[in-house]
Amino acid sequence: MELTFLGTGAGVPSRNRNVTSIMLKLLDESNEMWMFDCGEATQHQILKTTLKPRKVSKVFITHLHGDHIFGLPGFLSSRSHQGGDSLLTVYGPKGIKEYIQSFLRLTKTTLGYELRIVELDQEGIAFQTDQYQVIYHTLDHAIQSYGFRIVEADQTGELLIDKAREDGVPNGPLLGQLKKGQIVTLEDGRQLNGLDYIGPDKKGHIVTILGDTRYNEHAITLAKDADVLVHEATFAAGEEKMARNYFHSTANQAGKVAKSAGVKKLVITHISARYVGKAASQLELDAQKVFANTQIVKDFDSIAID
Amino acid sequence: MELTFLGTGAGVPSRNRNVTSIMLKLLDESNEMWMFDCGEATQHQILKTTLKPRKVSKVFITHLHGDHIFGLPGFLSSRSHQGGDSLLTVYGPKGIKEYIQSFLRLTKTTLGYELRIVELDQEGIAFQTDQYQVIYHTLDHAIQSYGFRIVEADQTGELLIDKAREDGVPNGPLLGQLKKGQIVTLEDGRQLNGLDYIGPDKKGHIVTILGDTRYNEHAITLAKDADVLVHEATFAAGEEKMARNYFHSTANQAGKVAKSAGVKKLVITHISARYVGKAASQLELDAQKVFANTQIVKDFDSIAID
Repeated sequence: MELTFLGTGAGVPSRNRNVTSIMLKLLDESNEMWMFDCGEATQHQILKTTLKPRKVSKVFITHLHGDHIFGLPGFLSSRSHQGGDSLLTVYGPKGIKEYIQSFLRLTKTTLGYELRIVELDQEGIAFQTDQYQVIYHTLDHAIQSYGFRIVEADQTGELLIDKAREDGVPNGPLLGQLKKGQIVTLEDGRQLNGLDYIGPDKKGHIVTILGDTRYNEHAITLAKDADVLVHEATFAAGEEKMARNYFHSTANQAGKVAKSAGVKKLVITHISARYVGKAASQLELDAQKVFANTQIVKDFDSIAID
Repeated sequence: MELTFLGTGAGVPSRNRNVTSIMLKLLDESNEMWMFDCGEATQHQILKTTLKPRKVSKVFITHLHGDHIFGLPGFLSSRSHQGGDSLLTVYGPKGIKEYIQSFLRLTKTTLGYELRIVELDQEGIAFQTDQYQVIYHTLDHAIQSYGFRIVEADQTGELLIDKAREDGVPNGPLLGQLKKGQIVTLEDGRQLNGLDYIGPDKKGHIVTILGDTRYNEHAITLAKDADVLVHEATFAAGEEKMARNYFHSTANQAGKVAKSAGVKKLVITHISARYVGKAASQLELDAQKVFANTQIVKDFDSIAID
């Protein structure tokens, strides 16, 4: 798993940061990518990377403010133009269906792939398979804004091949049976239980990506024990009143959420154009005072989730 | 008058060309700018220039295909965010009002300036003052697509100050009266007619900017005697069949329009990503074979109209 930040700014694009979009790359896990928000010119940012729009199978929209969705029409259209032909599902707040359907109708755009649009409720499970579960909950913003908790299923441990060989298991089909946890009988009559030859489960990852929000309890619940929490930091520490008035968070509030939730790493983004250079570094320091393992991201930064 | 090409590509943005937007700068004439089309990331292109969104008083949309309008929501929103508070009028095809109103409503965007939206008919005058007239007509495209003919009014000639002085007109109010074309009486009783002391009218400029179109007669009418004609050239000479199928023009068809209309200069744009380097230069040569004074533009090129 890897996160790539395509846009890390707030409100309007600037020379330094584009508006919000985050790509969760699941290429090793399931050969797909999931996009979180799609501000204007996200497809232009993608052009500067090696990312392939056709690999994007899901788009999650945290909320309907322009700096999070004005790139969606262009992205959806260009994905088709560039040969994307596989199903794409968009999850988002009520209104996302009308937003997409009206641009498709008015611009007479036809897509060369199936597009499904899922409007979310107050809270629930957006999507679930054997491999992933995506839980969502509304946060506290001027309009309905979601946080998403992506939970990867634990993976069965690997076959303890050295132990099996020590115990005289020959190369061949018996190893495969052991790996499945079956009981096998060796040529000398001994019976071995596969479960004794499989290592411990590999814990699945948890990634939490939050939309714009004031400091609130649901953010902590969504982020509980996450490997990575992506949190907005639209304002610096000390500007809590302004943050509250504009339905945003300060960097140290992001740190508080990370600390309360016991996450491994906090990533702050959605940085206002007012913070450049040292002022942006200060946001990182603000959060680090509360939660040490914090990183502020800039456009095109990637973070591996091991 | 000056034209600046913010995006010169067709269909989808590429590393070399953004999708369509053209700025007509009327800063010396009336301290304003008019935008023609607003593809995605037009506001990002503007960030790379010294152009001020608040100076844009009119936006003309040639047609509702995504590569001509997906940047409009972001541009309109950011113009407000960046302190634009003066009236802005958008002219475009039927549907442009719903397009704008639905994004404003769904994203809960409020603008800090008055926005007027004018949906155009088949043909007519979009806008007229003492200084300018903008005539439009539909062209021949897959959906309704307009061409615009911007006609600047002729300007009254300047006062022939040397001639007036030779004839004994003293400095002072009499000169002003002459300049207005009035009859004045000198101290010695002679009467002079102001019309004899005003130089020839200064011819107003004509600029014609066409939306996507097949070769057609209305284009020629709109471009008649223009100083500059901006014409699409989505395909190379020899690809007339393909151009026809996709409702576009070849470079030499653009040349034909320029020649038939007797324009001074032809500018070709809306270049497909398939034409880069020499292939793009070939488009220019294709058009030049028919109409010598042709220039292909790239993003950020400016053309002065003297």
